Amino acid sequence: MNNTININKSILSDHDQQAKLLEEEFKKNNIFVINWVSSPGAGKTELLSVLSKQLISLNYKIGVIVGDLATDNDAQRIKISGAQAYQINTNGNCHLEVNMIRKALNHLNWLSLDYLFIENVGNLVCPANFYLGENLRIVLMSVTEGEDKPLKYPSMFNSSNICIISKFDLKDAVNFNQEVALKNIISVNPDIRIFTLSSKTQVGLKEFIVELAKYRMISE
Amino acid sequence: MNNTININKSILSDHDQQAKLLEEEFKKNNIFVINWVSSPGAGKTELLSVLSKQLISLNYKIGVIVGDLATDNDAQRIKISGAQAYQINTNGNCHLEVNMIRKALNHLNWLSLDYLFIENVGNLVCPANFYLGENLRIVLMSVTEGEDKPLKYPSMFNSSNICIISKFDLKDAVNFNQEVALKNIISVNPDIRIFTLSSKTQVGLKEFIVELAKYRMISE
Repeated sequence: MNNTININKSILSDHDQQAKLLEEEFKKNNIFVINWVSSPGAGKTELLSVLSKQLISLNYKIGVIVGDLATDNDAQRIKISGAQAYQINTNGNCHLEVNMIRKALNHLNWLSLDYLFIENVGNLVCPANFYLGENLRIVLMSVTEGEDKPLKYPSMFNSSNICIISKFDLKDAVNFNQEVALKNIISVNPDIRIFTLSSKTQVGLKEFIVELAKYRMISE
Repeated sequence: MNNTININKSILSDHDQQAKLLEEEFKKNNIFVINWVSSPGAGKTELLSVLSKQLISLNYKIGVIVGDLATDNDAQRIKISGAQAYQINTNGNCHLEVNMIRKALNHLNWLSLDYLFIENVGNLVCPANFYLGENLRIVLMSVTEGEDKPLKYPSMFNSSNICIISKFDLKDAVNFNQEVALKNIISVNPDIRIFTLSSKTQVGLKEFIVELAKYRMISE
């Protein structure tokens, strides 16, 4: 067992070095990169579709890299928004890694992008450990998942800069307790910024886009 | 990289051997074991609570082992049903393994159980590869997650015997397309049995319990 752990550690450290190099390239080319994480079905693809559409209407150039174990459904859905999109199939891998992102970039006209969105594999555990050179990590938590998820998956909420409480239009249907949810999120990460948002009704989307633009300005 | 893959393979094979031994002990003691898997927030804990309560009222002895990265919230919730429950904290591990189950059994009066429920870590990827000596693997897919999850996480649906479409009371609120969902589930696993169920309204629970009893009888 010890051998495995040591080998994995050295891979991880090499991985982080590669991520750092990629981060520098993103910075040099003025590309603002967001790594989107959540459990399966929290609404990442839907949000990226409506968000891309809005940002494109503001003349930003958007690229999306989507990771899934199988299918290219999500990339197809996102392309409808007008964004460039490329699907990575991880073939069983539970998270994206830097070498996958590098290969995917070759399929996008990436140097011209203003925003690059990386939609990670739907998984609240594994992607937490893999930095992909992003400016922001955003975790989605849908109201239907229950208020306790930050406590049960602390590493994901701890390593994220922003938490979006998604599918907010369903909050009454599922008796979502916002106060408890906020308390739980903050208890594992006091520095995290929290937004509530519905991709369906688009309530909360405009406020989020304004904040995103601020983050981008600060990073320049 | 090859080294890591080989070492992991040998661990997995040793793991499967251990699972086989555990399976024999379960069988010898006439304990029907179910490994419950799903993405975070699909409703495993809620279903196990109402299911345990019903089975206890029918004089069955129920034990539940719950796996989470952190907290013992779920075990506490399940204990209210009257079931014995023990919480495993995986400290970052994305799935349960046989050695964890063995240790957890020591905290239950397990030889007297009729049903042992293992609530795996909420994750649609990693638990698929780890057999825990169970009679049945049941995957929950809530209507709020979207109909495409079987296609995107095929290994989990492929390795399960039963799929429960959960939170079925919310199907209209989220425009759940049952026909598409069934088609997707069957396309990755033609042999899977499918149930629709709401833990909240308990619609579908009785039918499921009857079927569970049949599975148990067949296994004896």
